[in-house]
Amino acid sequence: MNDFAVSADKTHLKPYAALQSQFSRLHHLEGGQGILHWDAATMMPKGGSDSRTEQLAVLAVLYHEILTSPAIGAQIEAAKAQKADLRALDQVNLMEMERLYRHATAVPGRLVEALSKAGSKCEHIWREARPESDFAKVLPAFQELLSLTQEMAQAKSEALGLSPYDALMDQFDPGARTAMIDPIFAELEAFLPDFIQKTLEAQAQWGALPAVAGPFPIEQQKTLAETMMGVLGFEFDHGRLDVSAHPFCGGTARDVRITTRYDRTDYESALMGVLHETGHALYEMGLPEASLTQPIGKPRGMAVHESQSLLMEMQVCRSQPFLQWALPTLKKAFPALENDPAWTAENLYRRAIRVERGFIRVDADEVTYPAHIILRYRLERQLLEGRLDPQDLPSAWNAAMQDLLGVTPPNDRLGCLQDIHWYDGAFGYFPSYTIGAMIAAQLFAAAQKADAAIAPGIGQGDLLPLRQWLRQNIHDKGSSLSLQELLVAATGEGLNPKIFMAHLQNRYLP
Amino acid sequence: MNDFAVSADKTHLKPYAALQSQFSRLHHLEGGQGILHWDAATMMPKGGSDSRTEQLAVLAVLYHEILTSPAIGAQIEAAKAQKADLRALDQVNLMEMERLYRHATAVPGRLVEALSKAGSKCEHIWREARPESDFAKVLPAFQELLSLTQEMAQAKSEALGLSPYDALMDQFDPGARTAMIDPIFAELEAFLPDFIQKTLEAQAQWGALPAVAGPFPIEQQKTLAETMMGVLGFEFDHGRLDVSAHPFCGGTARDVRITTRYDRTDYESALMGVLHETGHALYEMGLPEASLTQPIGKPRGMAVHESQSLLMEMQVCRSQPFLQWALPTLKKAFPALENDPAWTAENLYRRAIRVERGFIRVDADEVTYPAHIILRYRLERQLLEGRLDPQDLPSAWNAAMQDLLGVTPPNDRLGCLQDIHWYDGAFGYFPSYTIGAMIAAQLFAAAQKADAAIAPGIGQGDLLPLRQWLRQNIHDKGSSLSLQELLVAATGEGLNPKIFMAHLQNRYLP
Repeated sequence: MNDFAVSADKTHLKPYAALQSQFSRLHHLEGGQGILHWDAATMMPKGGSDSRTEQLAVLAVLYHEILTSPAIGAQIEAAKAQKADLRALDQVNLMEMERLYRHATAVPGRLVEALSKAGSKCEHIWREARPESDFAKVLPAFQELLSLTQEMAQAKSEALGLSPYDALMDQFDPGARTAMIDPIFAELEAFLPDFIQKTLEAQAQWGALPAVAGPFPIEQQKTLAETMMGVLGFEFDHGRLDVSAHPFCGGTARDVRITTRYDRTDYESALMGVLHETGHALYEMGLPEASLTQPIGKPRGMAVHESQSLLMEMQVCRSQPFLQWALPTLKKAFPALENDPAWTAENLYRRAIRVERGFIRVDADEVTYPAHIILRYRLERQLLEGRLDPQDLPSAWNAAMQDLLGVTPPNDRLGCLQDIHWYDGAFGYFPSYTIGAMIAAQLFAAAQKADAAIAPGIGQGDLLPLRQWLRQNIHDKGSSLSLQELLVAATGEGLNPKIFMAHLQNRYLP
Repeated sequence: MNDFAVSADKTHLKPYAALQSQFSRLHHLEGGQGILHWDAATMMPKGGSDSRTEQLAVLAVLYHEILTSPAIGAQIEAAKAQKADLRALDQVNLMEMERLYRHATAVPGRLVEALSKAGSKCEHIWREARPESDFAKVLPAFQELLSLTQEMAQAKSEALGLSPYDALMDQFDPGARTAMIDPIFAELEAFLPDFIQKTLEAQAQWGALPAVAGPFPIEQQKTLAETMMGVLGFEFDHGRLDVSAHPFCGGTARDVRITTRYDRTDYESALMGVLHETGHALYEMGLPEASLTQPIGKPRGMAVHESQSLLMEMQVCRSQPFLQWALPTLKKAFPALENDPAWTAENLYRRAIRVERGFIRVDADEVTYPAHIILRYRLERQLLEGRLDPQDLPSAWNAAMQDLLGVTPPNDRLGCLQDIHWYDGAFGYFPSYTIGAMIAAQLFAAAQKADAAIAPGIGQGDLLPLRQWLRQNIHDKGSSLSLQELLVAATGEGLNPKIFMAHLQNRYLP
């Protein structure tokens, strides 16, 4: 609670200092929640589930009570009145505080509680409905949740002066607006179908891409994963790697917990997952130490967060130079398999960049992934704006898949039931993935231009130059700049989707 | 927060129902703290320490703020005014609420904070001073902490109408009083020196007790530990076993986390430690489901808690019938060592009950252990009451060791610096250990009388009859009875130290 790094001079800035203290408290509360969530996914025995749900609910309510307390509102007004006395960074911090406060107070407590309950209920039913491919089973709970989400979006819309959908996106990516995304997604949509077709035709020339024949013992996979995390710069003094059903990056900035899941017959998927989560972890580990507890010290949003994981996974680790360098390390990780003829640099690289028209987003390659996102972006706006009746979701989904990817899911498990997001009440999140992919390409191109040591480093397993550039230009900025400001400062221009498309062109149709 | 199991009828009992809701909130906050403490000791990377300290501090402050809020005080008064309308159990719950409230409000916030800081500081210095055996190093911080502890004891004394030392004991063991402990400890003190001497003489006849020659691989030790936990009745759906520097039982009732530490050269110490912690865990797992979130659903105090671990470890697992039954399981756990001649039932039992005049409490056997406690009880009262100057602690300690155990520690690391308690501000805790040992003996004797299946069950590795008796008579009672009421209900009489002494006599000088 003695964490006032943003401004040391408190005597003349009482309301602002009081706010810093409260937001520091919220930060640590959030850190505790992060570890408890991680524990629930990795360590907790099954029978601890009910009490954990209650513990997290109590912490969430306390968080909300502190953030929405009238004292905070009054302190924000008072601090704004003295804004001229604050340093520039403190002024930005104050703006971020206000943004968080306005988001939190926009929704009445009754609605927060109703949403939380409806979300838990719908998610619970979805967990049964998905394997059974039974959309009708989850439909009533989903309709109820959607209706409450619409109510929340409306409330936030009014409080923030944004459209309802923009107000939801703003929770995950401050400043993200449909006005920015629509033309970008339109450009991608015009580009992708033809590009996917041509890429598939080109890759058809490759013939078979044999997998190294396993098994790949879990312990050996874990050692390999930790070795490669070290290569990327993961600080094991400030984090760890564990196993969970769904891989994630959690915990808190000075104690980052990433997870994966291992498959004894396939080492590639766990390894690439770990490298992806390591990208997330490096962002957390590089956040500005001096303002970690303040809003300004947080990650800029989900799109930037995703850009850091995709930069590491897609731009760096699936590149030919990196994989060529990594090959001996991979072979050494599985001593019993070292004579497998599938261990060639060319095969390794081609397997890493295979493109397929698949049904499942989380299994998608970087070429088809944006199509999965555009579909969801379209449909969730229609749902939220009442232009798509939830009961028509399966047919709308399948039609859009045919339209965008040229395939039709044989059932809803492989279709509109595959992702947790909507059934958990998260609308407005999906665009982050593809905006993140575009940011990753743009940052990586700029980084290589800015420091000539980066590209050769990657071919030698030396990621320090890249990491230093990311730390200085992205991680250490926290939330002190808007997304567009961050991009302009780091790359000389705002978000430019052409760089992502150029990356695809260079890699897939050189 | 919908946890009103103690009383379903809320309409006429508004203040009481509101209290139940707040105490449920405190319960879940405590559960979260429990898991975060466990994580810090078992999983957390080193660099997460600072942020964890802050997280726990924020949760502790929130806990204290909720418990001491004026609203709670007013609700307690209002509920007491309507007390006659409450069921008997609810009335007890209300009394427990008031006890917790009075303890928490007795100490001004300023003093709580000063104590917390002085405790952290002193503990930190103690961690350096202990290995260096340098009492002078920790003395100034210890003096400061002691002085604040005296202030707190005085404040609690006035608020609770107890002597300062009783007020401190009451935090750990509600109802524990020096008036009860003094004559019991006097009786023990008269009994022990001669008894220890005779036991040592008897055991000297045994000759060498060879240890099974290791090494004992950690994985095999862990499998054995989990097997034996299962025998005792540990529910793995509601708990787990991990490794930490100092073994403990933590987490929360439906998610109990116990720890141990393994030594490749000695399986006995980790195993006995696990069985001890399993006794603690069974108490938590057996607390009354319907009132888990309420004060009445908590363990009765540290002495009863310790009685449950000592009952399992000392009364059951170090007994001849149990060890005889366990021998084949132990041998099977270490297949490479099965032909070691030290694997005999007699050797196993004798090694489990060896008595030694040692310097270190945590390594002490059950015969000399009470002497270690009586020493600490005497000295901490003298310190608290200003009758012993902290700077004279080392010489007072060594004199008391000579007096009670006939040995003099060669240095303060093996003397007054060995335990964390005082250097962490915990005064009034030590008596719980020996009261717990006496309760264990008394409960075990009563249980065997009450159910004739218990004793033969132990010789067959069947602990279900014992566990059922403990569940019904101790665990499921939570805090609904005082310690003395609990003992009377379970054994027909209040605390009777003669049963413990009879146990020692039967085992060591039969």
